Amino acid sequence: MFYHDGKLQYDVKVDKPNPQFAKMLQQAIGGIEGEMKVCLQYLFQAWGARGPEKYRDMLMETGTEEMAHIELLATAVALNLEGATNDVKDEAAKDPFMEQIMGGASARHILSSGMAAMAVDSNGVPFSGSWVVGTGNLAADMYANVMAESAGRVLATRLWKSTDDKGMKDMLSFLIARDTMHQNQWLAVLEELGGVEGNHPIPNSFPQEEENQNFNYNFISTHISGDSKAHGRWSEGKSIDGKGNFTFEKGVPQGRKPDLGKAHPAGFAQKEQMKNDSFIKSAFKKVKE
Amino acid sequence: MFYHDGKLQYDVKVDKPNPQFAKMLQQAIGGIEGEMKVCLQYLFQAWGARGPEKYRDMLMETGTEEMAHIELLATAVALNLEGATNDVKDEAAKDPFMEQIMGGASARHILSSGMAAMAVDSNGVPFSGSWVVGTGNLAADMYANVMAESAGRVLATRLWKSTDDKGMKDMLSFLIARDTMHQNQWLAVLEELGGVEGNHPIPNSFPQEEENQNFNYNFISTHISGDSKAHGRWSEGKSIDGKGNFTFEKGVPQGRKPDLGKAHPAGFAQKEQMKNDSFIKSAFKKVKE
Amino acid sequence: MFYHDGKLQYDVKVDKPNPQFAKMLQQAIGGIEGEMKVCLQYLFQAWGARGPEKYRDMLMETGTEEMAHIELLATAVALNLEGATNDVKDEAAKDPFMEQIMGGASARHILSSGMAAMAVDSNGVPFSGSWVVGTGNLAADMYANVMAESAGRVLATRLWKSTDDKGMKDMLSFLIARDTMHQNQWLAVLEELGGVEGNHPIPNSFPQEEENQNFNYNFISTHISGDSKAHGRWSEGKSIDGKGNFTFEKGVPQGRKPDLGKAHPAGFAQKEQMKNDSFIKSAFKKVKE
Amino acid sequence: MFYHDGKLQYDVKVDKPNPQFAKMLQQAIGGIEGEMKVCLQYLFQAWGARGPEKYRDMLMETGTEEMAHIELLATAVALNLEGATNDVKDEAAKDPFMEQIMGGASARHILSSGMAAMAVDSNGVPFSGSWVVGTGNLAADMYANVMAESAGRVLATRLWKSTDDKGMKDMLSFLIARDTMHQNQWLAVLEELGGVEGNHPIPNSFPQEEENQNFNYNFISTHISGDSKAHGRWSEGKSIDGKGNFTFEKGVPQGRKPDLGKAHPAGFAQKEQMKNDSFIKSAFKKVKE
Amino acid sequence: MFYHDGKLQYDVKVDKPNPQFAKMLQQAIGGIEGEMKVCLQYLFQAWGARGPEKYRDMLMETGTEEMAHIELLATAVALNLEGATNDVKDEAAKDPFMEQIMGGASARHILSSGMAAMAVDSNGVPFSGSWVVGTGNLAADMYANVMAESAGRVLATRLWKSTDDKGMKDMLSFLIARDTMHQNQWLAVLEELGGVEGNHPIPNSFPQEEENQNFNYNFISTHISGDSKAHGRWSEGKSIDGKGNFTFEKGVPQGRKPDLGKAHPAGFAQKEQMKNDSFIKSAFKKVKE
Amino acid sequence: MFYHDGKLQYDVKVDKPNPQFAKMLQQAIGGIEGEMKVCLQYLFQAWGARGPEKYRDMLMETGTEEMAHIELLATAVALNLEGATNDVKDEAAKDPFMEQIMGGASARHILSSGMAAMAVDSNGVPFSGSWVVGTGNLAADMYANVMAESAGRVLATRLWKSTDDKGMKDMLSFLIARDTMHQNQWLAVLEELGGVEGNHPIPNSFPQEEENQNFNYNFISTHISGDSKAHGRWSEGKSIDGKGNFTFEKGVPQGRKPDLGKAHPAGFAQKEQMKNDSFIKSAFKKVKE
Repeated sequence: MFYHDGKLQYDVKVDKPNPQFAKMLQQAIGGIEGEMKVCLQYLFQAWGARGPEKYRDMLMETGTEEMAHIELLATAVALNLEGATNDVKDEAAKDPFMEQIMGGASARHILSSGMAAMAVDSNGVPFSGSWVVGTGNLAADMYANVMAESAGRVLATRLWKSTDDKGMKDMLSFLIARDTMHQNQWLAVLEELGGVEGNHPIPNSFPQEEENQNFNYNFISTHISGDSKAHGRWSEGKSIDGKGNFTFEKGVPQGRKPDLGKAHPAGFAQKEQMKNDSFIKSAFKKVKE
Repeated sequence: MFYHDGKLQYDVKVDKPNPQFAKMLQQAIGGIEGEMKVCLQYLFQAWGARGPEKYRDMLMETGTEEMAHIELLATAVALNLEGATNDVKDEAAKDPFMEQIMGGASARHILSSGMAAMAVDSNGVPFSGSWVVGTGNLAADMYANVMAESAGRVLATRLWKSTDDKGMKDMLSFLIARDTMHQNQWLAVLEELGGVEGNHPIPNSFPQEEENQNFNYNFISTHISGDSKAHGRWSEGKSIDGKGNFTFEKGVPQGRKPDLGKAHPAGFAQKEQMKNDSFIKSAFKKVKE
Repeated sequence: MFYHDGKLQYDVKVDKPNPQFAKMLQQAIGGIEGEMKVCLQYLFQAWGARGPEKYRDMLMETGTEEMAHIELLATAVALNLEGATNDVKDEAAKDPFMEQIMGGASARHILSSGMAAMAVDSNGVPFSGSWVVGTGNLAADMYANVMAESAGRVLATRLWKSTDDKGMKDMLSFLIARDTMHQNQWLAVLEELGGVEGNHPIPNSFPQEEENQNFNYNFISTHISGDSKAHGRWSEGKSIDGKGNFTFEKGVPQGRKPDLGKAHPAGFAQKEQMKNDSFIKSAFKKVKE
Repeated sequence: MFYHDGKLQYDVKVDKPNPQFAKMLQQAIGGIEGEMKVCLQYLFQAWGARGPEKYRDMLMETGTEEMAHIELLATAVALNLEGATNDVKDEAAKDPFMEQIMGGASARHILSSGMAAMAVDSNGVPFSGSWVVGTGNLAADMYANVMAESAGRVLATRLWKSTDDKGMKDMLSFLIARDTMHQNQWLAVLEELGGVEGNHPIPNSFPQEEENQNFNYNFISTHISGDSKAHGRWSEGKSIDGKGNFTFEKGVPQGRKPDLGKAHPAGFAQKEQMKNDSFIKSAFKKVKE
Repeated sequence: MFYHDGKLQYDVKVDKPNPQFAKMLQQAIGGIEGEMKVCLQYLFQAWGARGPEKYRDMLMETGTEEMAHIELLATAVALNLEGATNDVKDEAAKDPFMEQIMGGASARHILSSGMAAMAVDSNGVPFSGSWVVGTGNLAADMYANVMAESAGRVLATRLWKSTDDKGMKDMLSFLIARDTMHQNQWLAVLEELGGVEGNHPIPNSFPQEEENQNFNYNFISTHISGDSKAHGRWSEGKSIDGKGNFTFEKGVPQGRKPDLGKAHPAGFAQKEQMKNDSFIKSAFKKVKE
Repeated sequence: MFYHDGKLQYDVKVDKPNPQFAKMLQQAIGGIEGEMKVCLQYLFQAWGARGPEKYRDMLMETGTEEMAHIELLATAVALNLEGATNDVKDEAAKDPFMEQIMGGASARHILSSGMAAMAVDSNGVPFSGSWVVGTGNLAADMYANVMAESAGRVLATRLWKSTDDKGMKDMLSFLIARDTMHQNQWLAVLEELGGVEGNHPIPNSFPQEEENQNFNYNFISTHISGDSKAHGRWSEGKSIDGKGNFTFEKGVPQGRKPDLGKAHPAGFAQKEQMKNDSFIKSAFKKVKE
């Protein structure tokens, strides 16, 4: 069960309201790198967690914290929209805010939400539940989480550099710090689970002898002429998971050209794709009688 | 520029066509864990790559390989749909394939594609370009790729366990092997880039002194009573990136309760949310004159 | 069956074409508050209506009217785009329309539709059939409709305030009037159906004694400290539906902490989430033999 | 800021795990009538609330409660999936659970989430942020909320009738009770705000004399022959908002047939849609010189 | 403006209600090949039509007819759902309809719509406004329409073959007939506009001398070895539009390998992707001072 | 299987980077008229092709070529974004690029991708797999392809006219040329398959005597008064497919008004929609006992 205290996890001050920055902040709310995604991702992972109890608990702790981050950002959006109005345009021309709302700001921040945050990204594309990843495999999920916090911190630093508003920079420096922690946190779980060698290949519960042993540690080059520059740690030496040796190989097809044959009459392809008229007729005979 | 030879990267045989399994295979084509996603993700990352040339090349090599994986799976779907028809149901009742198409198989595999693969997941939800992640930050992207291959291998092992068709199991054991390699491959890049300490916190180009130093290595517990079980590697000791020390702290709000004040007349909230009538009237006066 | 006369329900004049306003009008066409939604919502509700015939008929009447509203707005968009061109930019710099098309207008209004309306919202997000709500329960549907016309009228008033074009203001004052009527219309159905006491709780056909009697009229406060300001009509007195008495209660969990146990081998979680190796091995034995 | 205690708001017991019912429960999690929608809707409305403080607080209280409802349902889904496996099909044939997973259950509950809930509806369609409605107008939002709880209670009663599992029926009777309260709660706000006459037409802050007075209380019949059955409370008597009188009128067009004229060359329509060749040539001359 | 008469364009009878067929019919309502798409596509094309008046009128006529087709199909869905209930499953087991609803039918047809049609496809994926194509170029739009009616007729014939219900077969034979007409209708416009030679390349208003003359009539083979079987009418002889001659050529890159250089510090890539530390520091200096 | 050579199919030069044009180019990458769509459409059609081998091969050849077009455009986007930064705004004011990024450019090109192309359209709406059309009917698919190349060429010409950058115009003149070829190519297949008379009505494998003979060649006018201007080639003379004669007819309903009767109790409509209380009670009795 969940509770709240109505206060913000960190203070949100906006010195100069800026509707364009409000639009950019939406990326950190409803974008694929945003807080709605990590909040729901950690909570759904917690709710479906099987195995050691502490991972479920930890996911729940941090998923709940992320709720507060959406709250911070939603407040920041609302405050940045103060001053944005839809007054008639002739007057707007004299008004720097109106240039913004007509220029790079989001019309829906006035038209749809009345100067409040929405569950969308910076282009107004709605948040999608498809972004909430929980595979039920703890290691795969931790990588999903490291990745989410990495993309999230990259986004937050870019936002930080896009504004010179002191309040906004301060709030973002808090969120950037939390992303630092959360990157470390999910990496700590991977370390507890045995590190790269213990976890990989993920899932580590699949009997590895069942995978095709001729293709599991080869870098396959698809370069047509073979003069690829794609050599590196991945093309020689022991594999990172310690269970094989990397090789570099030019890709060649192991299979034949596929042939799906003629179309079945029931699919109503063109006649030219089917066998012949008598075949088609026989397929329809039973219906008509 | 791209080329093809018309052959399959690995042989695809289906011993017993199974429309239900065709539907499940769609998850590996157009699902968020599927091959369309990784193919496009690696190619878009390559096309936008800045910095050392070899990473661009490597991404291009593997993105191109993934095209061949979509081809494998699309062929497998088409072959599993052989025998699936939309013949009238009274006859279908006697026909085990028809029970399947009427039961758990995908109606669109007949109605829309005429027994061929589609760019959708196992529920018929269309592939979304939003899943193609490329941040422009190489380390963040590598984690996105490790995660994609981890979720992908988890999916492939579950598909492998869902069928007893020899041909399908063989094809999947090949794809599982490639996922093993690709997990290792992206980890190898992270190793080349300096490993966890070199890369984290991602992005490593943000001046870390700008992030809030009071919140970057603390596990913040949101448990109401404080008897959380969420203790572990992440709550004590040196941080995984080697740049801080983990602590465990009970979360307390640093900010006040937000107050957005009264609504601006231009937003057309209800009157009760605004200041007073004279304020509203003055906002409309200029329009009417 | 449906008919048309090719004329507009109300006259549409645009004094000064404005591509930015064309973009904003798209919200009223393909947005979640727009006319496509209400048109299709009323028609689908009519087509699925069971029970008294007059409600089906009324829904059909108004759904058909809404078609004409899409037509009005689509015409307004096309007229606002007159003058918007994609001429080369050096010349554009001198041209106020080009500033608009490069600034806040929609590139797709030139690139995709050739200066015509599209089935998208003001951000270019496509109309979604998921917004077309029809539950089959007449009272629930009437609230969906009151809500749609309320959000729609709010949108229309905001658009009205965003323009000083006489023709546009006139067209919008017509649409605002229709929204007034339609709000009243759906409320009139609710009144006919017995008003709040007759309709609530919706559905009124569920035997209310089957719902948990300890939780059906309590305001549950999730405030951590209990000093919530959330007191009001909903926390004391007779319930609005007349079937209970409101109370204000601090929320406490009635359930235990969930425990999903260990993961089943078939899910290919990490080994650490499963019972033990022998359990895993036994799960795979049958496959390999 | 938000907190949790790790316990369930209400106990969740599943007597007979049923993967098909798990799939149906997803509608109440990630569907448009589900708990994710109401949770986020109330929280976003709270975060953007302007005007009397108590409404913000109340929205926050209940939005936080809805988090616990997602938790209940996610737990119920996980428990209903216990026993669902992807073991090979020949064995499955003997296994009633496998028939279900192969029949009407969701393949993604095994393939993607490893037997856990997902942020999708019962068809696997992802939750969409576009469903989170907050207009910034309190009355419009309250109707959105009454509607959400009405559709939600209709859904919950249908789920209640779809199962004979005692635990599931008990959990649903709790959720049905909460929907009863929440319907009443949002209606209580509308009563506090002045009831129908005080609130309508929404927004009540728009100067009603600006709306077209000839069309704001007329039921416009679009029936071709005029023998519509659509007469009722909405077609005569005082309007429900008390500000007009209903009339019943046959719709006639007030506008002319629209004429968009010839296409501008820059839109690259077909030549036949444009004025004439010399017009086209002149449009291209400046480019070529 | 639009009108209706409340009657169906063609009679709809369902002899044996079949919830599974109801689900399949949804493809013809809300699917990409369905009637919502063509209805809205023709109407939006009409509303944006520039040039000869008769094409606008014709599009309006047929767009309005398609409204009636959605009505037919929505009625057919509702009638096929009669008998589908969500009664508890133990009883359902004895009931052939319940097996269907639990097997291949759509749970949302009970849970969400209460046995009525929805604006979704046969998988429950919502109709998308992105499918409504209108380019503003009449010839391109006519091809979009021929294609829509072709895919639509293919779908309708597959549905026809999927049922042996007399009423349904009769309704579908009507819809199939209309698709025949509409294919011919849009082709007739193309003939009026000058046929293939007059229309192509579309748009015919672009000065063709501006397109690259070395690549406009060559079939470029991307086959790696050159032994492609892809020879045919398209690889030799006069081009179909009569404006060039087909050739068959092996593709070779005309461009170099792209090099995007180092990353700009403001993008917060990893340091390794950027020039050097001093470059990075200088980028941040101005911010901090 | 697929290969690449790392080089561009055509040279990409950008003389003056322009973030706004980068945004517009996204329409040609991830838009419904874009290269991702045609690439995947041709490849999926190839992978599912049944019937004459050469069509499968041809589709594969051109699908592979389109990969190279995405590559061209992605490179062009990245080069147009050079110079776009998120430096603080006070400085930006002096910087023409910053005006663009703040005006009409895409914030996500900095925030999300770090100045690289994304799998989205010009509004940031993600590419959708639903746009990838393959019906399994070769003629229907060829029309889908002609249509895609027509809309694609219209888009490319509009982009060509939107820029005066020499490099961009040159690249677009190449893409426009390829669209010319591809329009001709798919038309050539239709000619090989017998032209209009041989192919139509599509599918030509459905026994045409089964379609309703009274409605297959009539233009049905839905104009209310009959004075429609919609006369033309489609309303008289031999049908284009040569299998009927066009007529012009005023539409009249052939069916009755639908009556869905009372609601079943299991749907939990409002009581007023159901038969009577005893009916409802009997429906619930069995559950409670």
